[in-house]
Amino acid sequence: MKELLEPRRIALVGASGDPARLTARAQIYLRRHGYQGELFPVNPRASEILGEPAFARVEDIPGEIDFAYILLGTQQVEAQIAAVAAKGAKVACILADGFAEAGPEGQALQDRCLDAAKAAGLRLLGPNSMGIINIPARIAASVNAALEAETLPAGRLALVSQSGSMLGAIMGRGAARGMGFSHLIATGNEADLTAGEIAAMLVDEPGVDGVMLFLEAIRQPQHYAHAAWKAHRAGKPIIAYKLGRSPYGAELATSHTGALAGSDMAAEAFFRAHGILRATMLESFLELPALVLGRKPHVSTHRAVSVMTTTGGGGAMAVDALGVAGIEARIPDAHATAKLHAVDMHPHGRLLDMTLAGTKPDRVEAAIVALAAARDTDVVVPVIGSSAQFRPHDAVAGIVRGRDAVGDAKPVAAFLVPQADASLRLLAEAGIPAFRTPESLADAMRAFLDWRAPLAAPHMAAPEVALSERPDEADARDVFAALGLATEYARFTDTPPEGLRYPVALKILSPDLAHKTEVGGVALNIADEAALRSAMINMRARVEKAAPQARITGFLAQPMAKGLAEVILGFRRDPEVGPVVLLGAGGVLAELHRDVALRLAPLHLDEARGMIAEVRALRVIEGWRGLPRGDVEALAQAIVAVSRLAALDGIAEAEINPLMVHESGVTVADAWIVRS
Amino acid sequence: MKELLEPRRIALVGASGDPARLTARAQIYLRRHGYQGELFPVNPRASEILGEPAFARVEDIPGEIDFAYILLGTQQVEAQIAAVAAKGAKVACILADGFAEAGPEGQALQDRCLDAAKAAGLRLLGPNSMGIINIPARIAASVNAALEAETLPAGRLALVSQSGSMLGAIMGRGAARGMGFSHLIATGNEADLTAGEIAAMLVDEPGVDGVMLFLEAIRQPQHYAHAAWKAHRAGKPIIAYKLGRSPYGAELATSHTGALAGSDMAAEAFFRAHGILRATMLESFLELPALVLGRKPHVSTHRAVSVMTTTGGGGAMAVDALGVAGIEARIPDAHATAKLHAVDMHPHGRLLDMTLAGTKPDRVEAAIVALAAARDTDVVVPVIGSSAQFRPHDAVAGIVRGRDAVGDAKPVAAFLVPQADASLRLLAEAGIPAFRTPESLADAMRAFLDWRAPLAAPHMAAPEVALSERPDEADARDVFAALGLATEYARFTDTPPEGLRYPVALKILSPDLAHKTEVGGVALNIADEAALRSAMINMRARVEKAAPQARITGFLAQPMAKGLAEVILGFRRDPEVGPVVLLGAGGVLAELHRDVALRLAPLHLDEARGMIAEVRALRVIEGWRGLPRGDVEALAQAIVAVSRLAALDGIAEAEINPLMVHESGVTVADAWIVRS
Repeated sequence: MKELLEPRRIALVGASGDPARLTARAQIYLRRHGYQGELFPVNPRASEILGEPAFARVEDIPGEIDFAYILLGTQQVEAQIAAVAAKGAKVACILADGFAEAGPEGQALQDRCLDAAKAAGLRLLGPNSMGIINIPARIAASVNAALEAETLPAGRLALVSQSGSMLGAIMGRGAARGMGFSHLIATGNEADLTAGEIAAMLVDEPGVDGVMLFLEAIRQPQHYAHAAWKAHRAGKPIIAYKLGRSPYGAELATSHTGALAGSDMAAEAFFRAHGILRATMLESFLELPALVLGRKPHVSTHRAVSVMTTTGGGGAMAVDALGVAGIEARIPDAHATAKLHAVDMHPHGRLLDMTLAGTKPDRVEAAIVALAAARDTDVVVPVIGSSAQFRPHDAVAGIVRGRDAVGDAKPVAAFLVPQADASLRLLAEAGIPAFRTPESLADAMRAFLDWRAPLAAPHMAAPEVALSERPDEADARDVFAALGLATEYARFTDTPPEGLRYPVALKILSPDLAHKTEVGGVALNIADEAALRSAMINMRARVEKAAPQARITGFLAQPMAKGLAEVILGFRRDPEVGPVVLLGAGGVLAELHRDVALRLAPLHLDEARGMIAEVRALRVIEGWRGLPRGDVEALAQAIVAVSRLAALDGIAEAEINPLMVHESGVTVADAWIVRS
Repeated sequence: MKELLEPRRIALVGASGDPARLTARAQIYLRRHGYQGELFPVNPRASEILGEPAFARVEDIPGEIDFAYILLGTQQVEAQIAAVAAKGAKVACILADGFAEAGPEGQALQDRCLDAAKAAGLRLLGPNSMGIINIPARIAASVNAALEAETLPAGRLALVSQSGSMLGAIMGRGAARGMGFSHLIATGNEADLTAGEIAAMLVDEPGVDGVMLFLEAIRQPQHYAHAAWKAHRAGKPIIAYKLGRSPYGAELATSHTGALAGSDMAAEAFFRAHGILRATMLESFLELPALVLGRKPHVSTHRAVSVMTTTGGGGAMAVDALGVAGIEARIPDAHATAKLHAVDMHPHGRLLDMTLAGTKPDRVEAAIVALAAARDTDVVVPVIGSSAQFRPHDAVAGIVRGRDAVGDAKPVAAFLVPQADASLRLLAEAGIPAFRTPESLADAMRAFLDWRAPLAAPHMAAPEVALSERPDEADARDVFAALGLATEYARFTDTPPEGLRYPVALKILSPDLAHKTEVGGVALNIADEAALRSAMINMRARVEKAAPQARITGFLAQPMAKGLAEVILGFRRDPEVGPVVLLGAGGVLAELHRDVALRLAPLHLDEARGMIAEVRALRVIEGWRGLPRGDVEALAQAIVAVSRLAALDGIAEAEINPLMVHESGVTVADAWIVRS
């Protein structure tokens, strides 16, 4: 979309001639940074603005425009939408805030702007957008103060940020580290264009090697999925930093941008499923791109790296931080050891410590090449000490030569222990990932080793089920049965059927009682029909007393069962990322430990198996300590079955709690469904 | 100890005249950085070294020396110990490695050097020590390459590092951030002087305001405890960064320094008990001192801060990172809100967002002063956007004025979102803590809010117990009974005693069987004496078959008991920090979740209560979800009782597993003791 990424006829609607004002900045910055296209300041009170002819109204601009930056106050924006569209603009960028993030009135105003734009075939960027910057094309259509800089760092990384101020902060921090950018685009409230949709456009740009996303919320997840697939095919990594890892941050993302924030577990599952790398530190967000640009995700079974160091303490610090992130610095294997011996290096343990050898480039090169021969590690990590500060060319030369010798087979990623700005810049110029802190190194390594190709969502026919308007437990069980999760039960109103396998559990049926136990709606271990009849009478009386409003739709009886383990298997539609399936251990302790795994739905069997492996408490059915094994495969199939609910729009949430896992098979012990 | 911290007559034993050699550096650096005392290079093959008169042997030095830096190779060190002591040296610093960290031979050599030094009244620094630097006194007796710098950053922070290379790295990184140092001392292998002992000396120095420790291992923990008390009284914080948070790091600390590494939980408990602040990131290690210098630990019940921002995205990032660290950015309370309204600021939610107001110094000042009035937060955190990059004086002025107005009541700690080196320096000069990343801000806040005054170990008489040489379960129970944890049981060989309260559990007694169940040595729910007798016969046969080497010392019977919860209560002597007590939830799931709390032993009741609160699974006996409450106070008393084992040197490890917690009281269900 050329009009967004490289506009050539730009209207600045509401431009100011007072250089101290925010609304003057776009024009100042466009000119400062060498904009070569046409510029049309619009302001009814000026015929000239900052030395350029101005226009009273958008309509007065001669000829067409392709991009309008609307700099007016919140209440004046709506009136301009049709006008800029009539002038041929394909994109309007709105600077003002006070829209969806400010409450219902702002939301209504934002919706009206969007409707007007859609009607006119205009795409919106913002509101609350700091604009777009295309550095190679010398287009700085933004009010971001970072454009005060005399020159902008040109490069091949694109950045899309929902926060305008972070655009400048990341550009400046990146520039200080030798990073260059192609495009920097602020999406603000994302009434229309989202970071995901723009990422998909950027992936197609020949001048872009990768896309960084600074996100407060995920809107229109399908665009991200699309972008991720295109990015994967093109070999252009997408790297995200997303707020909302803490409950406070999630809450703030909501108030700050007007998005309904989902849980971070859902966001995590979303990034993982789509092959989007996620940094969890600001520093690693900046340092990660150099590690992954030009690479595709590889499936590592190692989660291990090879570390060499010219400084014992610094090397140990790296190994420790990697270990905290679950990554092993591995002892050189036979292949690496043989190569090390050939160059007279004698590794001891996890760290090839070359402190005594100093940082002679040929030795560092030899060590990197030898360690790269290890078949059980994923990355070679040289850790460099004081020479990185005092002899940058020496410090960097060995790493560069080592990387050149190793080629693309295995990344070489350096951690520089001292303050070593010059070395960091040299490494950046050589395209070698380099890290300032052991923690950022570890976070980037974790992201890299977790990186997977985007998962294709399985194609599954929508299950055919008759959904009752207000489902009770029996209705929910029917739905799960349609998915292949049938468990013996009987439904009745007054007379228990013949043939019940006693002892049974008896439960009240009601669409209004999600928590039956609390109102006395569950009785266990009923031995025979006489006991059942009496239990029914008592239960109805109890429930009618405890929950007089509840509509009672009958009773349900099921044979008593005991599993090797009990799990919660749930489905919901996350407000950000959409349908997800959740597996958790059952019981009080599991709840205390929040021992759950979550994935996008629907999913493949392999992913379901991965979920089971993630829930710690389920090790008790995986052969741990000689305990009897449960039917993990049946559980995995149950997860896949439940994930198919994604195709049933009428279901908002569903849960089997507990699902019992036996030596053979699984049993639905209770079920619940919430309609959309 | 003046001869260590400020030597004035220094011998460089093994000094080289070749400036390219490591052994020449001490002399070069001493002179470069303005050493004013006397210097005696010692080298049998030169009469002059680097332009200064040299001496063939230590004995040839005229007059006395106070400090000898032995630069010789590993095998030549031992011979010099007596010689430098004879010359009056109080401290000898040993550069060479190849001692304890290199294996048993090196350990023996190190031990001999230490013995020789002790005999001669000489203290040792090292081996494997990069020496000492006293910047204000212009003494750079070190070979650290960081001394290549033309000037050294003078200040009032002391650094003690077991790693020599980290000395330079931290000095250089600190200097770049405007930090100044008084002393930098590398302790290496710590054959004699430890970082803890040196920290205790540094706390007495008038030019020192705080001490930073870079640690790979904790040796001689009593010195740290002593230093911490002195530091607390003097109001000089001690800040530590310690390796060993991951198993790999702990393993490496072992091989790198020859220390037996303890578990990180023990180190964590150690720092906490002694009021030592611990940073878990390299960046926060450097940024934390400015937050705590001149402060004493305060007991906060808030774990909450007040955040204002000039940049929405950056502020949200800070709030999110703080939240991940368990710290709430709190909505302004009535006091703060009233003050904000008075200056026409209208807070919405957790973040006082002043994006629109820009970074006008008077507004930032007013916001800081108003937020400091909140009575339910511990720190005011201004988050500053682009002005920190482009208008550093403006950006910093409001913060400085705000801090000045707030005074010492509440720290003001800034997070600068863009690349803002000049602002960081200005803030450092003004003594205001400032953070480069949200993650480091959060880590430092966590350390600050966790900071407590050193705990006085309780004075408890050593329990009077008769310790059997090879204790079986009954002996162990006797020990616990002497501590006040008596639980009914009977010990017998062939004939069960009268008066047993059936049903009972029967167990085999043997000092050789820590895990009785595995050899069939436990039988439960025995109804009467006849059943007991038969169980005894079967059990003896089973155990004799399964463990023929085990010496059977009899049987033990105890009434069956069932608790509301089962816990593991253990005692051990950690190789680094000494006696510790551990509380964990019992059962399989708790083990899977590593749900434990650990403290130094002995401890006070309050600390024991804190341990119970830390173990998640124990919420089930603390009134969670309406479950019956257990006797938490009896459990706390049991923890204190077990912690008294610290005074019994004969006991290496002890464990009650499980201890059952009832509605009233606790029951020892099994017990075990390992002699030292």
